[in-house]
Parts: sequence; C-alpha cells; structure tokens
Amino acid sequence: MALAQSLAELSLATSAQDESALPTKTLVFKPKTAKSATPIPILVFALQSTLTPSPVIAKAANVKEPRLANEALVNEFFKTSPKEVSIANLNKDLAGKIKILLDVNIVKAAEDEEKNLKLSTETASVCIPAKSVVEFLNSTGIEVINTDFDADLPPPPPVSASASAPATKKKSASTAQKADAQIEDAKLIGITVDKEKDFSSWYVQVVLKSEMLDYYNVSGCYILRPTSYAIWETIQDYFNAKIKSLGVQNAYFPMFVSQRVLEKEKDHIEGFAPEVAWVTRAGSSELEEHIAIRPTSETVMYPYYAKWIRSHRDLPIKLNQWNSVVRWEFKHPQPFLRTREFLWQEGHTAHLTKQAAEEEVLQILDYYAEIYEELLAVPIVKGKKTENEKFAGGDYTTTVEGFIPATGRGIQGGTSHHLGQNFSKMFNMSVENPEGADKERIYAHQNSWGLSTRVIGVMVMTHSDNKGLVLPPRVAHIQAVVIPVGITAKTTDEQRKNINKGAEDIESRLKKAGIRATGDFRDSYNPGWKFADWELKGVPLRLEFGPKDLESKEVVAVRRNDGKKYTVKLEDLETKIPQILDEIQADLLSKARKEYDNHRVTVDEWKDFVPTLNKGNVILSPWCGEPDCEDDIKDASAKNDDGEDVDVDEKAPSMGAKSLCIPFEQPKLKENQKCVRCDKPASTYCMFGRSY
Amino acid sequence: MALAQSLAELSLATSAQDESALPTKTLVFKPKTAKSATPIPILVFALQSTLTPSPVIAKAANVKEPRLANEALVNEFFKTSPKEVSIANLNKDLAGKIKILLDVNIVKAAEDEEKNLKLSTETASVCIPAKSVVEFLNSTGIEVINTDFDADLPPPPPVSASASAPATKKKSASTAQKADAQIEDAKLIGITVDKEKDFSSWYVQVVLKSEMLDYYNVSGCYILRPTSYAIWETIQDYFNAKIKSLGVQNAYFPMFVSQRVLEKEKDHIEGFAPEVAWVTRAGSSELEEHIAIRPTSETVMYPYYAKWIRSHRDLPIKLNQWNSVVRWEFKHPQPFLRTREFLWQEGHTAHLTKQAAEEEVLQILDYYAEIYEELLAVPIVKGKKTENEKFAGGDYTTTVEGFIPATGRGIQGGTSHHLGQNFSKMFNMSVENPEGADKERIYAHQNSWGLSTRVIGVMVMTHSDNKGLVLPPRVAHIQAVVIPVGITAKTTDEQRKNINKGAEDIESRLKKAGIRATGDFRDSYNPGWKFADWELKGVPLRLEFGPKDLESKEVVAVRRNDGKKYTVKLEDLETKIPQILDEIQADLLSKARKEYDNHRVTVDEWKDFVPTLNKGNVILSPWCGEPDCEDDIKDASAKNDDGEDVDVDEKAPSMGAKSLCIPFEQPKLKENQKCVRCDKPASTYCMFGRSY
Repeated sequence: MALAQSLAELSLATSAQDESALPTKTLVFKPKTAKSATPIPILVFALQSTLTPSPVIAKAANVKEPRLANEALVNEFFKTSPKEVSIANLNKDLAGKIKILLDVNIVKAAEDEEKNLKLSTETASVCIPAKSVVEFLNSTGIEVINTDFDADLPPPPPVSASASAPATKKKSASTAQKADAQIEDAKLIGITVDKEKDFSSWYVQVVLKSEMLDYYNVSGCYILRPTSYAIWETIQDYFNAKIKSLGVQNAYFPMFVSQRVLEKEKDHIEGFAPEVAWVTRAGSSELEEHIAIRPTSETVMYPYYAKWIRSHRDLPIKLNQWNSVVRWEFKHPQPFLRTREFLWQEGHTAHLTKQAAEEEVLQILDYYAEIYEELLAVPIVKGKKTENEKFAGGDYTTTVEGFIPATGRGIQGGTSHHLGQNFSKMFNMSVENPEGADKERIYAHQNSWGLSTRVIGVMVMTHSDNKGLVLPPRVAHIQAVVIPVGITAKTTDEQRKNINKGAEDIESRLKKAGIRATGDFRDSYNPGWKFADWELKGVPLRLEFGPKDLESKEVVAVRRNDGKKYTVKLEDLETKIPQILDEIQADLLSKARKEYDNHRVTVDEWKDFVPTLNKGNVILSPWCGEPDCEDDIKDASAKNDDGEDVDVDEKAPSMGAKSLCIPFEQPKLKENQKCVRCDKPASTYCMFGRSY
Repeated sequence: MALAQSLAELSLATSAQDESALPTKTLVFKPKTAKSATPIPILVFALQSTLTPSPVIAKAANVKEPRLANEALVNEFFKTSPKEVSIANLNKDLAGKIKILLDVNIVKAAEDEEKNLKLSTETASVCIPAKSVVEFLNSTGIEVINTDFDADLPPPPPVSASASAPATKKKSASTAQKADAQIEDAKLIGITVDKEKDFSSWYVQVVLKSEMLDYYNVSGCYILRPTSYAIWETIQDYFNAKIKSLGVQNAYFPMFVSQRVLEKEKDHIEGFAPEVAWVTRAGSSELEEHIAIRPTSETVMYPYYAKWIRSHRDLPIKLNQWNSVVRWEFKHPQPFLRTREFLWQEGHTAHLTKQAAEEEVLQILDYYAEIYEELLAVPIVKGKKTENEKFAGGDYTTTVEGFIPATGRGIQGGTSHHLGQNFSKMFNMSVENPEGADKERIYAHQNSWGLSTRVIGVMVMTHSDNKGLVLPPRVAHIQAVVIPVGITAKTTDEQRKNINKGAEDIESRLKKAGIRATGDFRDSYNPGWKFADWELKGVPLRLEFGPKDLESKEVVAVRRNDGKKYTVKLEDLETKIPQILDEIQADLLSKARKEYDNHRVTVDEWKDFVPTLNKGNVILSPWCGEPDCEDDIKDASAKNDDGEDVDVDEKAPSMGAKSLCIPFEQPKLKENQKCVRCDKPASTYCMFGRSY
C-alpha cells in the first residue's frame, strides 16, 4: 500500500504534458501449474503497442502455456479485478510470489528523462515519467525480467509488391516471402502479424493501418474514419430506401432517459443496468435526478407512442432512427464488435394486429440478410433465438448469424424482435377495439429491430488478409485505383507524359461510367509502394498502366482479393471493369459462404460435439429446446484449464458453446431423435457455437 | 422552511405513478411600481399547458404591467433564483408581501383525489397530489387568488375551412372569422393563439400541433418527429453533395471527451464549461476520471489530426460529421432554437495555406446561405462577427444572420470559422516546410463550421401563420395532398366511386412525375376538417377534386401560403403542378426577403437607434469597431423598467441590441462618418439588433 501511495504521489508530481505519453498495458498471466502447486502469476508490463504473445512470455518467464489469469487469481494476488490491475497494486509482500516481465521498450524509454508513460485501468489513467516507473518496479523486490517481446516474434510477412503474386494461402501465410527490393518501407506500412497465428492483433492492425478506425483516448470508444464511415453511409442509403418503402419514417429521440423512465420496464432494464452511463452533473451543478444515456430506446420512445396512439387509425406507427447508443461494458472492448458507444439504427413499430407485426419482423430480417450478403459479401444464417438468448422483454427474437472462419466463432449480425404486447401493456399503448367500444381494448403489437456498425467488423474479419483490408466493391469508397507503372530513369519525358496522361484518361473514363475510381500520381512513391498501400486499404481493383500498355492500348487489372490478373483493352474499359467488379463481389460471397458451409457441421451425438467445436466449427444439433439443457451444453463444452474456470476472454478458445439460433432452414428430424445433450426428445435443430 | 419541509414530506408520500401527473409552472412577476414603493411580487402557479398572459395577470391581481421578475427580486423574496423558484420556497413570512395567482385548472384537478401535479424547477421535480398542493397553498396565509386564465384570453381564431378564404393578413389576424359550420372540432386541432399577439405560445402550438416535434420528459430535450426530421434529411443530402464535391469526407468521432483533453484549449473551453454534461458513473461504478459529453468537437478531433498529419502531403484534412452535441444551458429552452441536445453537422478542416482555408470558409458560408434561401426560403445576410461575438479561440467567424419579423429580432443561422493557427499550435499540428527542412515548420491553418436543426425553427417562425405550419415545397415531406370533395348524402355510389377514383389517379400521376403527393381518403372526416388538418401540417398545395371537376376534367389547386386558387386541367397536371410548387417556393422567399429588407434600417445617429429598434427592426449603423463601444450600445439600448435591469427573457422586448454581423455587403461610409454611438470615426457599417 505504501508503494501504491508513492506511485500516486509520483503521478501528482507529473506535468500535464501527457499527449505524448506512451500508453502501456498491464496483463496478468497464469502458467500451467500442477494442481497441487501454488501458481506463480506473471505480470506483464508493456507498451500498448508491443505485442506480447504467449510463447514469448513462456520463454522469458520460463513457464508453460501462460494464459490470461482469471478474476479469482488476480483478486487473490492483487486484491483487484483484471480490469483494474496496475503496477499500483504491487507491494513488497509479492516478492517471490510473482514475476514481472518488463517490456524493453519501456526500459529504453526510461533513458529519456522527459518520456512519460500512460498507465490506464478500466476506470483511471495517470501519466508518470518512465524513469520513475522503472525505478519503482525495481524497488519492489519482485523479480523483474526485462523482455524483448519483438525479438522472439516470427518474422513479419512482407507485403507482396509483385502484382502477379498469388494471394497468401491459408496455412502458408507465415512462410516469409522475399520482399521486392523496391519497397523498402513495406514493413512500416504493412501488416506485420499473421491472421492465422494471432488473429486478434492482426485484426487490430488491419483496421488501424487501413485507416478504417483509430483508437480514442476514452477507453472502449473509437474513431470511425472516412473509409469505414463511407461503408456505413452506403448501408444507410440501402436500408433507408427499403424501410421507407414499408412506410417507416426516420425520426430522432433524445439521447437522455430519466432514471425513473429507464427503470420502468424491469425485465428489459435488467440486462442493461450494469452498463448504463449516467450524467450526474451539468457545468458545476449536481443534477437532482440522474440522467442515463440511452443503451437502447424502448423506454425513451414508448411513452410517446402511448400518447400519440389515440385510436386504431393512428396505427401502425413505424419509426426508425440512426443514432449512437452507449453501453459501458467492462469486458475487453474490440473495434466495431464491442464498443462503448456505437452507431446503429433502431426501428420501433406498433401495429394493430399481431400478423402485421410478425410479417414486418421477417421482412426487416430479410433486409439485414441483404445488407450482409449483397453489400458486404458476408454469408449469414437466418433463425430465431432461443428463450435464453432472446431480447429480454420481447416475445421472440429473429437474427442473422455470421461466422468468423479464422476463429471458428459465430457472431450475431443483427436482430429483429417481436415484442408482442409486453411493452404496450407496460406503457398503456392501447386503442378502442375498431369492432366496437364494448369489445376489449387492443394493445399494440410491437417490434423493434437494430443493426449496428458491428457489421463492418464482421466484414473485415471475413475478407481481409495478411496484406490488409479487402473491401467488397459495392461498399468500397474507392473501387479502382489507376497507377502508372514502368517509368524508369531511362523513360523519356515524352513517354512519361503519355503514360500519366493515359492513366488520367482511364481514371476519368471510369468515373464517367459511374465507377468510384482514383488515380495515384504521387511522384514521391514508387509503384511497388503504391501497390502495397492500396492493397492495405482494400481497394478491390488495381489498374496498372505502363509503356507496353500505352503501345498495345490495354491496361492490366489486378483483383485485390486473389491477385487474379486481367488484360483489358482500353476500348472495353466501360463494360469490362464493372464486370470484373461484379465478379469480385460474387467471388467474395461465394468463397465466404463455402467456408461457412464447411464449418457448419451437423452433430447428432454428444461425443462428437466438443471435438467438432474445437476444430473451429459451429454445430447444428438436434435439441430439446429446454433452457436448462442449453446452459448445460454451454458448461459442458467449456474447455477447462486444470479444473478452474478460465476467464472468458476474446482470445480464449475455452468458452462454452452458446446457442446461436434455431435456423429457419431446418434439417428434417429423424423419428424419435433425441436431444444431442439430454435424454429428452429433440424438438428442433439448433445452431451452437463459441461466439463473439 | 417548515412549510417547505412539509412539502418535501408530502412528496415522499406520493406514489410513483407520475406518468399521468400534470406538469405545472411557477413564475414570479413584478408589477410596475413607483420607485419609492416596495413591489408586491405575484407568484403564478399554473398548469404548464395554461397560458398566463400579462394582461390576465394584471387584471386578476389588480396591478399594472406585470413583467417577469429579475434575479435580484426573486432572490430577495424567495431566497433562490427564478429557475429554482417553486412553491416550496413559500413561507408564512411572505403573507402580506406577495400574492399568489392559482390556476383554476389546478383547483379543479384538486377535486380528484387521485390527480397528481408535477412540480419542476431547473434541477428537480416531484409529484404531489393536487389536493395537497392546494391545501398547502391555502395554509400559507398568503393571499391566493384563483384565476381563470383562459376566460380572459382573446377568442381563438378558428381555422378557415373555406378553400378560397384569403390568408389571415398581418394586423388583422385576431379578427375572429366565422367558422364553417362543418368543422366543429377545428378548435381542437387548430392553432388557438395569435402569432401577432403571443408569438412564443403560437410557436409552441405550431411545432407541436403540426407534429414537427414533441416535448420530452428531460427538460430542454425534444423529440424530432418525422415531419421535421425529413427536413433535416433533405438538408443533409443537399449539404453532403456540396461538401463532398470539395473533397470533404464524413466520419464519426466519439461523443465523450476526457476532462483533461476538454480543458486543453482554455479560451475555447471557457465558453462551454458551464454547459457541459458530465458522465461520472457507469452502472454502479464511479468513474475515476469524469467524462464530458461533447459540446462541440474541436478538442475531440484535433489530437488525432495532429497524429495523422505527418507531412504536408497529409494536408488538407477535411472531415465532417453529422452528430448530436449537448450544451446543458440553464436559459429558457425553446424548440429547435435552444435545446440541450441538438443535431448538427460540424466540419473541421486543416490546410497547408491560409489562403486555402479562407477560401473554404466563404465557400461553406455560401452553402449555408443556399440551405436557407434555396431550400427553406428564408433570407439571410452574410457577414463577419465582431470580436465580441466571434467563436472563442478562432481568428474570425463568418455568419449567416436571419430575421424573425414577428418579434423584430435577429437570429444567428450558421457559422463558418477560420481558426487560424490557434488550435494547430495548441495541438502541435505541424509539418515540415515543403520548401525545405531548414525553413520554419508550418502549423496547419484550420476552419470549423456548423449548422444545426435550429434552421428548422427559423423556417417555422418565418413562414407559418395562424392556421399552422407553412412548408416550402422543396423541404416538404408531402408537397401536395389530393382531397375528394363535394360528396354529399345525395351523391350516388357511382359518382362517389368516380370521384375517389379520379383523386387516386391524380395522386398516382403526381407521384410518377416525382412530386411527393398523397391522397386523403379517410372517410371518417369531412373535407373541411381535412383542409384544416393539412393546413395545420403545412402541406404546400391542396388539390380538391369533386363532381364538377370530374365533369370538366379539372382539379382545383390551393396554395397553403396564401390561399391562392388555380384551376388546373387534368391533362396539364404534370407540368402545371411542379410550376405552382416552384412559384410557392419563390413567393415565400421573396415575401420574407421583403420583410427583412423593410426591417433592416440604416441609422446614422444615436437618437434614432433605440426608437428604430423598438419598432421591431434590426439596424445598420456606422460603427467604430471597438468592443467597448459594442458593450455600450448593448447597455444603452436595453429598455429599463423603472430603473432596474429586467431579466433577459425570450419574451422580454427589453434586451439590448447585440451586434449581429458586419455585413459583407456594405453601404459606402460617408467621409468623416462617426460611429453611431461614440465620437470615434466609423470604420464599417455593422448590423445590430435584439436577437435569439
């Protein structure tokens, strides 16, 4: 505690110049230990930007299979949760009981008197001189091992500069390829982590380096940069046209909800309460009633629906809004997939009849499926959520479920809920029966449906590769880039001018033909560097135009997704290029669909369940439909690490299988088919899997 | 204090059933009193929905010219601010010193044991049985006068059901017109307050009854319903196309800012600090660092601009976002004009040269002017803000300034700021000089520009009338409504069918021609009621189709803005209707422009300044350009009520004249022209006025 205090004092002494402070991370690992032995946790203290893979930790600390420690272990040693642990939790009593791996980048930083480190936990952050931090660590009496995490990393696969190189194939991605000598700085701009080997770091690199997104200094919040926001705009335009044709209108409701209103619908709020962000102060005035930021808008909107609905003629009400919602999750955040503020649309409709509501639920689900499959080239499975997994407070939830082959995990893509009359009874949204005032009043039949920017993350995970982002042409902000090539020291000025002019013509003809094209005429970069740059950014088609092409009136087109090459006659530009773009779009979907189909395995017997799951599949199994059995499947399929539950982390392949959905498209159940897990008769096939 | 306590106890005893509680308001007025006399304040306690005009207060309390009391007076009597005053501030000592006017609607409510009242101040609200409240008031010993505010109101002008009736003319609007006997419930659906007599209540009725907006249960927040949101979408589409042509890209930055970052730019934050909403808690965890909700995004975005800009080749950066911002103002909120959360776009750009930045500032201002004039038919004056009124932290602010004829007040319409290098130096947004590393580094030249949903309020105030909303065709979600007319008891089924069929044909032909048309075939309402309903909602053109029209193959078209009538041959439908819509659009703008021009008066001498201002004009005056002189003009033009400063309220015509802008279009200054206020030479003409 004294140490923590001295650290606190240090932080007070630090100047406010922390824009340049280096962000750090503190992670606790538990090595594989005999059950009878007391584990020696390893505290890793590293720069945020340093990758700290398990094999390096194992080697440096001389232990076996270190895994992120669970809540109980962290609490036992550090008296706090894994999200709150920091070096402020160290004390002399821990000497001999734990080890510290200290990133050499921090040791290096400490040589500079002026360098500050930024130490952050879930709820706090301070900036402290690196020098003081290192001195502090060495003063604890705990074993500190300076570790060069980078030195032991597998060599980064260089970005391929050769246009004709085939796409990095699965399972061979880590084989180092010889870099084209021309692109010296490929390593600086390209992806340096293998998708197959460290999916999570690869993903972060792709979204950062392709400029889709940037990290933000409020944890769990991210900046959507133009490349990703443009995709969201495309989705907005598509979906707006669809829902407006159904008579849905856009509107905007406030982001704030009073505590009283938020808590009105008990079932509903239970799921959100732990994640609600509260405004308690304005300027210097404390607010008497605290105000929540909406985690979703049911309770924001429905009191007004109740007010607006005075007779059956006011039904249906069909409103949608494009907004941001806040769910202050304490789980590990992940760009696009799990963020504290995210953009979405939420539609809320109220109908006179159950039938009208139920038809709409499925219609919206079809639109969501189209957004995934037609725009993002991501295959999904449509189905219904189980009772355990449905939206609390609603009657049932329909869903589109995706699949990430690289991790073998399912991912919920978007949900369309039939709320029944639960909310309408709660909020008294009722009308006189049109058949007569003597008949019972009718409570509105309601739906709500939402799709978020998560879709972008699913798309990135599905198509992108070790060269960077891969964008489906329909959502790509730039669909084709024209690059002049073959200009050398020997090229005459005349030739150079003609090549550039030719490339400019191609760009302008494509634009006129409605293709989102651009030309890259930056003279400070060579073609190889440009190829790598545009590959990183995911532009679907690269057009190379050089001296030979000038002569033969052709252009070389190279597909981003698989490196496939075409020679296109200039006279065919306007017909051929859109055709190639359409083919790319179709090929991306069909490749991903094949992957999904191959990894959706029907399993009838429990003995095959976990092994199939562990091979990175989702599973289709006959199931009894009982919530308890679902819980049991989850528990029984969790991989246990020497008997203790492992913290459910995004990297942990140990989590149990959740039900993903009961697919609408069902295999036929055999007669007397039993549930895959229990002895009861199966009532349906259900899709199970580890999931995001 | 004892009374306040008993009130507090009552509130504790109240059930949580407050959805149905009647909202109330507490206002303090000060009558005109001889300077030597002690004023007797009048506390008005009424339902929120009850209008409490000064003349009624004067009559009921038997006093002269009651005005909203200022801060000092309220403090003197009630020991709190006008925003916090409530009946809980009453005590026996006030007996004989003040009077209470009690709304009879509250007295009536108190007869029902179950009716609750909702008492709200700026920061708190409680629900208490009406019965208890009335008993409490009568127990104070203070004179309580039960007042029927409605009884003394001028009779509401009924909605005109006659299609040919001319638009209500200025100055004659209050003349009661005979209602068509057919529309018995016109009073229920229509506007009941005269725009000329009580502009503020009229405005609220128009935005509520036209279904543009609804009040929300968090004070200062409003619901944008589809009618207004559709206008915002039109503006978005228009502006997006314009800025994208300049190379601006849309993006999305988080709504949260950490305290440290927010407070980085001192000048900038000073203006916002008192209005910032703070998140201090998530779920049940207190946050260690409090997080602000952005009041604007300079400090959110610029640290990342600094990071992204590594060389001059990364410039310009031009990003825009469509988002909501929160400014927790404690002034009286007003739909669209002053709301605690509002929608806007904010563009933030960084350029290599000052020239590029300055060109953009003006280009954006032109787009803002187009949104007002071309889309919303609202005339504006372009100009530059004075030093006093510019955006803090920027170099200069350009603005489009509107004018509300009904109140004679100016209104800021949208601003485009040149920030210079202030922020780029603060956030170290610099690049190596492209002319050589030995030259000085270049700090980016920045702009920011924003336009909010306030534009919708300005549009409503400008065009709408005592029949309700008037929408310019270009932004109207529905441009034309087709209504079958002339169907009586004598009409045969055959005729009825043909009339309806004819109206449906007109609707469908107009839609095919790209006009946003709808047909009103509701058989539960008669045409008169429908006319009033669509007039209330502001639909620009009504098409009446009856038996005669069927016969003569014509349709009658009636303009919403002025009741002007046309007979259109059905064969000319597709050419004639768009033409009429264009004329309406042009006429709305030219009428409003004439009003603005007539009320923008050049005043060279101070003696004419205040009288001209008091006639509901804005003023163009020669001015020295000194900030102190500007302050002096403001003070000297404030109307004083027997010597004391009157609280600056939106209804108060007493506020001083601010500088609105230095118009780009300048009258020529006479030689040796002096400042309108001081003795210094004038350097420019400046526009002054009372303003929103």
